[in-house]
Amino acid sequence: MNTARPPIHPWRLILASASPRRRQLLQGLDLPVEITSVEVDETPPEGMPVQEVAEHLARKKALAWTGDLASDQVLITADTTVVLGEVLLNKPVDEADARRMLGLLAGRTHHVHTGVCLRHMRGMLSFTDVAAVSFRAMTEAEIGYYVERYRPLDKAGAYGVQDWLGHTTVERIEGSFYTVMGLPLHRVYSALHGLHP
Amino acid sequence: MNTARPPIHPWRLILASASPRRRQLLQGLDLPVEITSVEVDETPPEGMPVQEVAEHLARKKALAWTGDLASDQVLITADTTVVLGEVLLNKPVDEADARRMLGLLAGRTHHVHTGVCLRHMRGMLSFTDVAAVSFRAMTEAEIGYYVERYRPLDKAGAYGVQDWLGHTTVERIEGSFYTVMGLPLHRVYSALHGLHP
Repeated sequence: MNTARPPIHPWRLILASASPRRRQLLQGLDLPVEITSVEVDETPPEGMPVQEVAEHLARKKALAWTGDLASDQVLITADTTVVLGEVLLNKPVDEADARRMLGLLAGRTHHVHTGVCLRHMRGMLSFTDVAAVSFRAMTEAEIGYYVERYRPLDKAGAYGVQDWLGHTTVERIEGSFYTVMGLPLHRVYSALHGLHP
Repeated sequence: MNTARPPIHPWRLILASASPRRRQLLQGLDLPVEITSVEVDETPPEGMPVQEVAEHLARKKALAWTGDLASDQVLITADTTVVLGEVLLNKPVDEADARRMLGLLAGRTHHVHTGVCLRHMRGMLSFTDVAAVSFRAMTEAEIGYYVERYRPLDKAGAYGVQDWLGHTTVERIEGSFYTVMGLPLHRVYSALHGLHP
């Protein structure tokens, strides 16, 4: 294995996320990554526009973290929401709810919002990246198969773009695939460039 | 593990491709997949429009395969090309060529064409899926890092959308991420629906 260093800055990253997808993605930047987690109440504040929820929760997670940051460390938190029209689809509460959500998404285009917060010693910044995702129509049998086989109860909108449903049903994305997976890596990378230890 | 069967037809697939990415993707359809390979001269015919090359090569690979197909088997072949304007970017011949290609792609939008051929006992069908991919600008240091660390000499256009370059540099895709990876799975799945053993 080649040991060339990535041509960016000296940051060490701390990812506060329980998502194995985010952990795997962030490691794709070739920077040192430490993993931690943080618990917050993810209920959106009443009356908040659905487009703002993901970034709000990412900031809330960053503020809830109680560890110490060295001058070369950046804490990264994120939250992903699925928005259909003006409706927020959270994680389904059970399999029936997952089937209901997929029935809503089938044959339509929805938006995935991933909010990201970068916290460092001198402050924090945050942003939202949005991607449009178009599903083809689905049969009841397909929805039933997916929910039974993949049990997408831990996923906003009840699907994973990197599994069977993403493989067979997503016709088109406009934006970043990685935003749909849960972390807009290109924007994390750019934002790190803008920080000065 | 749940043993629910996918809600489609009884096809068994044979993938003739040396690409580990295509192999992994096709297995994502939850159908039985057998792997084989086929060798063809991938030089495009003189004068062929660049937009037609991928599908032409996919058909050529399907025709070059000499195995037997049972009535429930489908042979799948594919080819992926990177097209910038009217210029076809093949696999780079060496690291300098890879740096040259990435220099051309940086800060611009190009198109990835994946041609797919499905051959079965009674005939074959083929199609092309196209996705637009936008790169941000890159520094020489970034290009150098990527080529040295990832040696993308086996990849059309000298990059992989699923590795460091895809993570840090691809700002936007319009179309299917899996087409950029080398196999538009949603279209393979739909095409299988249209076949009748």
